[in-house]
Amino acid sequence: MSEQGKSCASFSPVKAQSASDMAKETGGQWNEFFSSVPEPAHFQESIAAVTKFISSKQADQSSRVVMVSSGGTTVPLEQLTVRFVDNFSSGTRGAASTEYFLERDYPVIFLYRAKSLQPYSRHIPSVLDLLELDETSAGVNVKSADVARTRLILEKYMKNKSSYLMITYETLGDYLWLLKGIAQALDCMGPRAMLYLAAAVSDFYVPIHDMPEHKMQSDRKPVIEFSLVPKMLLPLANIWAPNAFIVSFKLETDEDLLLPKALQALEKYQHDIVVANLLTTRKKWVTLVERTGKVTKLVNSTEDRDIEELIVNTVVDKHTEYIIGRPTAQESL
Amino acid sequence: MSEQGKSCASFSPVKAQSASDMAKETGGQWNEFFSSVPEPAHFQESIAAVTKFISSKQADQSSRVVMVSSGGTTVPLEQLTVRFVDNFSSGTRGAASTEYFLERDYPVIFLYRAKSLQPYSRHIPSVLDLLELDETSAGVNVKSADVARTRLILEKYMKNKSSYLMITYETLGDYLWLLKGIAQALDCMGPRAMLYLAAAVSDFYVPIHDMPEHKMQSDRKPVIEFSLVPKMLLPLANIWAPNAFIVSFKLETDEDLLLPKALQALEKYQHDIVVANLLTTRKKWVTLVERTGKVTKLVNSTEDRDIEELIVNTVVDKHTEYIIGRPTAQESL
Repeated sequence: MSEQGKSCASFSPVKAQSASDMAKETGGQWNEFFSSVPEPAHFQESIAAVTKFISSKQADQSSRVVMVSSGGTTVPLEQLTVRFVDNFSSGTRGAASTEYFLERDYPVIFLYRAKSLQPYSRHIPSVLDLLELDETSAGVNVKSADVARTRLILEKYMKNKSSYLMITYETLGDYLWLLKGIAQALDCMGPRAMLYLAAAVSDFYVPIHDMPEHKMQSDRKPVIEFSLVPKMLLPLANIWAPNAFIVSFKLETDEDLLLPKALQALEKYQHDIVVANLLTTRKKWVTLVERTGKVTKLVNSTEDRDIEELIVNTVVDKHTEYIIGRPTAQESL
Repeated sequence: MSEQGKSCASFSPVKAQSASDMAKETGGQWNEFFSSVPEPAHFQESIAAVTKFISSKQADQSSRVVMVSSGGTTVPLEQLTVRFVDNFSSGTRGAASTEYFLERDYPVIFLYRAKSLQPYSRHIPSVLDLLELDETSAGVNVKSADVARTRLILEKYMKNKSSYLMITYETLGDYLWLLKGIAQALDCMGPRAMLYLAAAVSDFYVPIHDMPEHKMQSDRKPVIEFSLVPKMLLPLANIWAPNAFIVSFKLETDEDLLLPKALQALEKYQHDIVVANLLTTRKKWVTLVERTGKVTKLVNSTEDRDIEELIVNTVVDKHTEYIIGRPTAQESL
């Protein structure tokens, strides 16, 4: 058995029994979901890359690893997909958070929606307007007005690019397959692993057997009946990665629902933190709710700074407390 | 009355009477649609920019203008939108076609979905891997291996960037408002105007009064009933821009439907060309169907070339025939 296999086996979940029982109960729903949604292309390669990445970090006993999920999942409405339901997300939250985790020396597995924003390059929206032909050298340069800013971004990118691994998804099915696989691989890190779930994940989907094969025709009003996606946090926090520190995000549009929904989720799934945020103000303030019921409002008072810097710094402190409070991988061997 | 106003009034539609009558009939449906979907933000500014762009080209009697629509429309499912239905489209068709229209000296109004691919920059997917720090000059350069290719793209971009106007949309409603406004502005160019409709436009939507205000909750299976969007090509080809040359695209997944659907559309809407294509083979071949019933299959035999080059060159020839066969703006004054 590999080192990794050994350390995996050495952790035992300390979540409330009720959540664990519930997770077992929903096991059947999950088996059904995964058997009705095909494994994504390149799944095996992606998980192999993740395992290799984690192994390379694991040797350092103080190293932590975070998986950041980012962007919105798609829900195909046809088997040969022309139309799909999407969740609003440009990927700013995940891409920005990844940069701040890297600043705090966390290696990052960045699980992102294809073509959503990426760390560092998100700061350069219009590449061709940045460049100019240099006739002296017959080369291409960044325009002088943009040099200072671009150097800063490029320096950070070059310094950190080997510290994050990009894994891409498109559909809800791809996302959940990869999330499960990555969570299982990460659990070997014990409490030093963090799952930071910033992706906007659909609550509903159309099972493949309910989907038309071809593009829906437009000669009559379509009525689409969706099925509910089983609650992913339940097996994630109790079966797939019971030892990891888990931060979920909850986006609402109705402020009255924000706190009750966050507390309800923590009670039900027994994970660690919910970052609750409103669609319209999500770049200005968020509410961090812990499993203990502790509530912290984080307010970004300046536009020069990303609110993700505040969120990540706070979450990293909470992660440190979590690790101190639980046996480390080393101690439990 | 402005020059532009005068030349507009001087054209009279020569479409079949039946289509024209049908267009009048659907007028009511369109009024209803536009009254239930708010004008997009910056609508007036966008149309003012379009009018200015067209005026600057109109002076040259031989100048043509094409509007290229690109990307997929979104259909919001909530008033404060978290979820929406999207149409599959990365925007390659529209962005590539725009480049080839510019090569053929067409000024282009590029009506594109926010964050979909853009002309020229579509060739540079990963900006940060292209750049390197130059410590001698304290600048930033494109890496030598990529210089030749980047120079070529940048030269074309700089040569042509003042010849295309970028107008952006997100939702189906934004798209249709802008399409109508641009078509009406373009009709003053008479037959020298072309509308090249490469955007993937939803056939259905949820009217605002049927939409929940807040994010749908996930405690029960959602069932969504969509309304049909009135057929946009009918007023477009018969009321908004009856003089323009109009090319539409039809994407299907079932090959058997390709030709019958294209012929049916041309008969019904009386526009000029349908480019019919299949989801799986759309980069390799398309079928160009004309109002006369003439069918031409365009096959891209090499991977080094975009099929859009073939499509645009063929469509430009057809446009020339169309202009010759109809009074020009000058002659009809």
